[in-house]
Amino acid sequence: MSENFFTNVEKIQYEGENSTNPLAFRYYDENRIVMGKSMKEHLRFAACYWHNFCWPGSDIFGAGTFDRPWITPFGDQMAHAEQKARVAFEFFEKLGVPYFCFHDTDIAPEGATLQESHDNVSRIVDIFGEAMQRTGTGLLWGTANLFSNPRFCAGGSTNPDPEVFAYAAAQVKHVLEATHTLGGENYVLWGGREGYDTLLNTDLKREGEQYARFLKMVIDHKHKIGFKGTILIEPKPQEPTKHQYDYDTATVHGFLLEHGLQDEVKVNIEANHATLAGHSFHHEIAVACAKGIMGSVDANRGDMQNGWDTDQFPNDVAECTLVMYEILKAGGFETGGFNFDTKIRRQSTARDDLFHGHIGGMDTMAKSLLNAAKLIEDAPLSDFVEQRYGHWNGELGQSILNGTADLESLSKLVLENNINPEPVSGRQELLENIVNRYV
Amino acid sequence: MSENFFTNVEKIQYEGENSTNPLAFRYYDENRIVMGKSMKEHLRFAACYWHNFCWPGSDIFGAGTFDRPWITPFGDQMAHAEQKARVAFEFFEKLGVPYFCFHDTDIAPEGATLQESHDNVSRIVDIFGEAMQRTGTGLLWGTANLFSNPRFCAGGSTNPDPEVFAYAAAQVKHVLEATHTLGGENYVLWGGREGYDTLLNTDLKREGEQYARFLKMVIDHKHKIGFKGTILIEPKPQEPTKHQYDYDTATVHGFLLEHGLQDEVKVNIEANHATLAGHSFHHEIAVACAKGIMGSVDANRGDMQNGWDTDQFPNDVAECTLVMYEILKAGGFETGGFNFDTKIRRQSTARDDLFHGHIGGMDTMAKSLLNAAKLIEDAPLSDFVEQRYGHWNGELGQSILNGTADLESLSKLVLENNINPEPVSGRQELLENIVNRYV
Amino acid sequence: MSENFFTNVEKIQYEGENSTNPLAFRYYDENRIVMGKSMKEHLRFAACYWHNFCWPGSDIFGAGTFDRPWITPFGDQMAHAEQKARVAFEFFEKLGVPYFCFHDTDIAPEGATLQESHDNVSRIVDIFGEAMQRTGTGLLWGTANLFSNPRFCAGGSTNPDPEVFAYAAAQVKHVLEATHTLGGENYVLWGGREGYDTLLNTDLKREGEQYARFLKMVIDHKHKIGFKGTILIEPKPQEPTKHQYDYDTATVHGFLLEHGLQDEVKVNIEANHATLAGHSFHHEIAVACAKGIMGSVDANRGDMQNGWDTDQFPNDVAECTLVMYEILKAGGFETGGFNFDTKIRRQSTARDDLFHGHIGGMDTMAKSLLNAAKLIEDAPLSDFVEQRYGHWNGELGQSILNGTADLESLSKLVLENNINPEPVSGRQELLENIVNRYV
Amino acid sequence: MSENFFTNVEKIQYEGENSTNPLAFRYYDENRIVMGKSMKEHLRFAACYWHNFCWPGSDIFGAGTFDRPWITPFGDQMAHAEQKARVAFEFFEKLGVPYFCFHDTDIAPEGATLQESHDNVSRIVDIFGEAMQRTGTGLLWGTANLFSNPRFCAGGSTNPDPEVFAYAAAQVKHVLEATHTLGGENYVLWGGREGYDTLLNTDLKREGEQYARFLKMVIDHKHKIGFKGTILIEPKPQEPTKHQYDYDTATVHGFLLEHGLQDEVKVNIEANHATLAGHSFHHEIAVACAKGIMGSVDANRGDMQNGWDTDQFPNDVAECTLVMYEILKAGGFETGGFNFDTKIRRQSTARDDLFHGHIGGMDTMAKSLLNAAKLIEDAPLSDFVEQRYGHWNGELGQSILNGTADLESLSKLVLENNINPEPVSGRQELLENIVNRYV
Repeated sequence: MSENFFTNVEKIQYEGENSTNPLAFRYYDENRIVMGKSMKEHLRFAACYWHNFCWPGSDIFGAGTFDRPWITPFGDQMAHAEQKARVAFEFFEKLGVPYFCFHDTDIAPEGATLQESHDNVSRIVDIFGEAMQRTGTGLLWGTANLFSNPRFCAGGSTNPDPEVFAYAAAQVKHVLEATHTLGGENYVLWGGREGYDTLLNTDLKREGEQYARFLKMVIDHKHKIGFKGTILIEPKPQEPTKHQYDYDTATVHGFLLEHGLQDEVKVNIEANHATLAGHSFHHEIAVACAKGIMGSVDANRGDMQNGWDTDQFPNDVAECTLVMYEILKAGGFETGGFNFDTKIRRQSTARDDLFHGHIGGMDTMAKSLLNAAKLIEDAPLSDFVEQRYGHWNGELGQSILNGTADLESLSKLVLENNINPEPVSGRQELLENIVNRYV
Repeated sequence: MSENFFTNVEKIQYEGENSTNPLAFRYYDENRIVMGKSMKEHLRFAACYWHNFCWPGSDIFGAGTFDRPWITPFGDQMAHAEQKARVAFEFFEKLGVPYFCFHDTDIAPEGATLQESHDNVSRIVDIFGEAMQRTGTGLLWGTANLFSNPRFCAGGSTNPDPEVFAYAAAQVKHVLEATHTLGGENYVLWGGREGYDTLLNTDLKREGEQYARFLKMVIDHKHKIGFKGTILIEPKPQEPTKHQYDYDTATVHGFLLEHGLQDEVKVNIEANHATLAGHSFHHEIAVACAKGIMGSVDANRGDMQNGWDTDQFPNDVAECTLVMYEILKAGGFETGGFNFDTKIRRQSTARDDLFHGHIGGMDTMAKSLLNAAKLIEDAPLSDFVEQRYGHWNGELGQSILNGTADLESLSKLVLENNINPEPVSGRQELLENIVNRYV
Repeated sequence: MSENFFTNVEKIQYEGENSTNPLAFRYYDENRIVMGKSMKEHLRFAACYWHNFCWPGSDIFGAGTFDRPWITPFGDQMAHAEQKARVAFEFFEKLGVPYFCFHDTDIAPEGATLQESHDNVSRIVDIFGEAMQRTGTGLLWGTANLFSNPRFCAGGSTNPDPEVFAYAAAQVKHVLEATHTLGGENYVLWGGREGYDTLLNTDLKREGEQYARFLKMVIDHKHKIGFKGTILIEPKPQEPTKHQYDYDTATVHGFLLEHGLQDEVKVNIEANHATLAGHSFHHEIAVACAKGIMGSVDANRGDMQNGWDTDQFPNDVAECTLVMYEILKAGGFETGGFNFDTKIRRQSTARDDLFHGHIGGMDTMAKSLLNAAKLIEDAPLSDFVEQRYGHWNGELGQSILNGTADLESLSKLVLENNINPEPVSGRQELLENIVNRYV
Repeated sequence: MSENFFTNVEKIQYEGENSTNPLAFRYYDENRIVMGKSMKEHLRFAACYWHNFCWPGSDIFGAGTFDRPWITPFGDQMAHAEQKARVAFEFFEKLGVPYFCFHDTDIAPEGATLQESHDNVSRIVDIFGEAMQRTGTGLLWGTANLFSNPRFCAGGSTNPDPEVFAYAAAQVKHVLEATHTLGGENYVLWGGREGYDTLLNTDLKREGEQYARFLKMVIDHKHKIGFKGTILIEPKPQEPTKHQYDYDTATVHGFLLEHGLQDEVKVNIEANHATLAGHSFHHEIAVACAKGIMGSVDANRGDMQNGWDTDQFPNDVAECTLVMYEILKAGGFETGGFNFDTKIRRQSTARDDLFHGHIGGMDTMAKSLLNAAKLIEDAPLSDFVEQRYGHWNGELGQSILNGTADLESLSKLVLENNINPEPVSGRQELLENIVNRYV
């Protein structure tokens, strides 16, 4: 019989901006309508299984600090997995998060054979099915873990050993089908070991081809089983490998184009991966929107002084307002949403710290949605931008864009008319001040 | 009458490894045959016009320190340009560098109108023609400066003002034709201002389209005038802009694919730009080779503790050996070469410091060529790599690569045969030790 | 007679939070009392002379873009300097900034001899004196530029040539006295070239001794002339040099201790220098407060994706709230203040962009002050911290701090009582949420 | 009875530069005399216990990949510890490394009480004593692990809980005594958790005082028990904490000065920590030498594209030559040495990969020693540096350094003599070329 784990936490309620209750929302009011949709529909929040329930608070220099009794090498691992599932759904329900996300190895122990692993996963998937029905929680996305087991240390699909490719394929097939069964809205591929540790032992070209083959198989299987969700690649520049092939959104876009997959695959952008790649979170979102491959978001943040994936909760309303603004401009999420791929700090050892982290993250995004909606409505930025490029709608601009003009004709034009354009202020400081009015 | 500027330097000679003459080569022996070609033909060294002759040793915090009498706002600017050309060719000849590279604004002052600017450039191009014939120096590449003049502060082809696009087009037309006239082997586009300072005033999608149109015009004009050289894009992630569109090789490759230009354009990779983008020099070269767009190289180095383009001379034989190894594996340069896009330090105020920098760079690359040739010959790395991926030549590997296998068949295979692959050592440390035997 | 330069800008007024007038303050209400002092007295804003009036909008890749008619190598340089001074005071007055800051070389052209340079500076200092009296503007700090002239390319006080040390000494003497004359509240030393470009030609120990001697001379002279202001060192890790000796606040503190100067010198912390050094702005302020050497602040921001000093205007209220909180906790500024060592972007070519930048910066800091005052008043953070360390007030804690305990006694205590402390949650996410309530 | 673990490896022999045997030294010839001392005495190599024998090849994204049968949560942990010790000494002996280093928790399992932990450690220390005598291996340094156990998640000596301080004290006492017993030459303090994760819950000043108290207790105890070795602090800027107090050598030096400990404590510099702190390895060594606190070295390298501690084996002879040159100039190691705080890559799953890593590292340092000795002998750098600062030996220089001169006298001197120093070339490129002749 399931007793509660988060005994001192009740269902989190919206209490409004002035609430000082740390276990309440100040901005996230799931039914509030913003630009014609509820906050819940806009934000499509998900909690993740891995950091919340599978990670004991360990880091590379120290053991786990958290109170997670089901994480132990001793005892019946399937019983632990079932307890974990109960606690997870208690958490999802109390937090009021409409979705969750998981890797196969998060939810069930690996067996002695792949068949056993599959069976373990399937058993927990059944439990999920019931819990999802009972609680109304949906699955934002599922994914297969192709990076933790030693067999994947040289990659999954990009492994020098084709048997590893085959093993990875079998694993993805199982999770893709489980995701379909659970009504998942997306399927994610994060290529944690699809990259290299040293170029000295690596054939880049060959691994690129292997990877493309893998992706095509996944797409084919998706269609075969009738899965309507989106296939998402999650860019990350490095860590754990020295260099990861899905470096950033532009790189993934190039890879998709190279293999004709740009209409089948979108990206799952993580804030912390953006900054590790030398980009702002805003940049990665804007690039994905501009390229038409914006899929979903892992809403977290890095630490700008630390060069690794810290996966902290988003708390910067100014930054997230611009992220939300880009997403709204592009029409909002379709199958995607904001998944909290976030870890509480290793020192956050109280059970309810999980709630504090998520409440802060959800309120940050909810406030950002409100701000962004106002930025869309008032349109101070889009008006400026439209006017800035306005001359491109004129004769000269159109002749360039429609291919009538060439170097010769343009050169003639400039020389004959002695064209000598003057710079016009880009107004960056003014625009930053305007944005600050909305934050 | 041209009197000498580098009065205390004679033509630099090869004196062999044991020479302690700082004004001699220890490794660069231009006629030495390596793998069937002379060092000169392999390395195709170029000196650049800008850092050597147009930069007075200023930085953002201080005025010029160098003895460059022709750099002054006072006096007859064309006479200064002519003196500069004389000194440049004295330098090229004494250094024994077979090529040089230039921007239009390096070689001649801008006029009051574009026509005047063109005329100034043309006059110096005539002088170059004679000097090249006299000295045997070739032109590795020419380029138009679309970033220094205030009119380009918001970009050249990606400017919000189509008149700036037109101006840039006219400028490129003139330099492309000049490059053709001088027998240049490549034409380079470095998009120093093709990027953004803030996303707040920028339309990424629109600027991408403008940029692609520009590139197509350049390609069309190249064919129209019969220029057989290669069009090269030079990736850089940022600086001067916050974000530059040609971020790195993978990004440029994606952009070329998006616009169907992958067979017409290659990359000019700069070591310092690679490291600013979060990559190793080796990585960028390896990616360009794997994608088939390796064109030419700006051989320099950054400072790993400084976050800007320091453009120092290459001096790391270990790193350059691997770079040279990739280039040799890919068949060596076609139209490209090693251009020294390098600056002596601001404290290097003696005239002959220009020679010390280049001699060090040329010897570094020459020694690297010797090392790399031996790595090709002995093949310790390629043998290892071939063996590492050997199973991909087997039945399973081939069924995956040729599209016979799918998730279903692979899953079945793994489950039925209980396949459970074990990791095999990647041997990174051993391979690094082997490379060190060749350095 | 001085006609206006900023013709379309009137004196900037406070209009309150809801104002959409871009040329008005929304938070900075100079006479508003916060914690017993006016905003003006708390924030002690200064505008800088160099970026605003001496920089034409050039960068390392391009020429100036700004409309600054007095910046030209042609014409009467002292007349230009006088025009610049008029425009500067027009700006200070219209902006309503109570202080300004300058380098000697900002305000007057260098002469053919040091005597001439001194005379030029003195002439402008006289003009300043009148303008300050007329407008009520004060001098936050003065400083000597020991980094732009080629003579300083290998450092000022740390130069290998003692004559450069002597020259630097003479220059500092003059500016220190000018600062005193003008009633300046601090004197700043930024060691832009006090560092190294390469260790190969550098004697670290010797240069450290030279630098300490210099600093002692400045302190002695300060006392001799009766200057009551504070001597400030401005930490920066690199740029223009590869490594700057005043790397960060901790390094400067160590240097002061090494030479017994910790009671005579404080730091002038710049936000962008903090982030270049791998620290947060908050960190550097907190360290300076903890060490008792917090002096003044160069309020700006860097770009976390760019590795150089971008000197942008502060616009992050969340970050600046914490900075302001530290400063208030430490008692507020004494002689220091917030100087805007900030540059508008090179594309911000309209004259009034200077105002937009400063208004945004001043409002950011003013809002941060309001937030921080509330954080002090409500004390959610300080209460938490006090409680967290509470046990240190107990017997065990006191025995450790007062030196009674030693390894032996503590070991005995632990072993005999089988002490086995459990971790207590650090509550980072909760605290971050609390801070967000105040932003 | 101890059977061999590294069954396919014999004692590693020196075979000379031309050897292609991957399990032989090409440069490290332990008895070869260089500048009057054997290589063994110069380099004082140590292998570390933790990465080699306690780490299974796990990383934050994946499980252990290595064949280390004694690492398992199951079975008799003391028996595992004994097996580990046997394998370790087999390794030390076969590698021919004269020293090793360890943490208490590396060598023995933690017990249910501190007494039990002590007993476990003591039992293994006894085994070490015998093995050291048998094999001639010495202990370079010991240290207590105050960062892995959850009790230390908020720091050891800087913990908000004084009981944790007491626990840490007891642990250090035990290891310091064990180190003394085993004839260890140094005792190291690495403050892995002495730092903060967020300033919001941290009292910097208080933690600094706690840390200083701790250090004083350790020094007192060292003297009390008659330990003659050196106390070493190991700087690191961050990881695992967001900010570590012992950020870099300059910061540690400042801390020592603040508490009057500069004659009692030196630094243990790690290459990878240097680069994480934004410094070159060379820089950190040079600073430590200049400040007189150079103690010992953790010889490894980071990956310049990865922002975390990769702890790779040193393989850059050029860089290590300069490091060795600084150490030789400063008189060589006293109690310190080169400890390989290095990890083979997670894919290096073969048992003998441990040997390949160390052989490469030892040869890199041995070749660097040979190069550096020649640099000392020929003195091209020191001659240049001495001459560069030569004028400081003259009258003006001496008057400055000895305190005779002041701002007044120097100003008078410059003005009266119209001194106007010209820059002299710093010759960086030339010096870099010279160094390359020695690499």
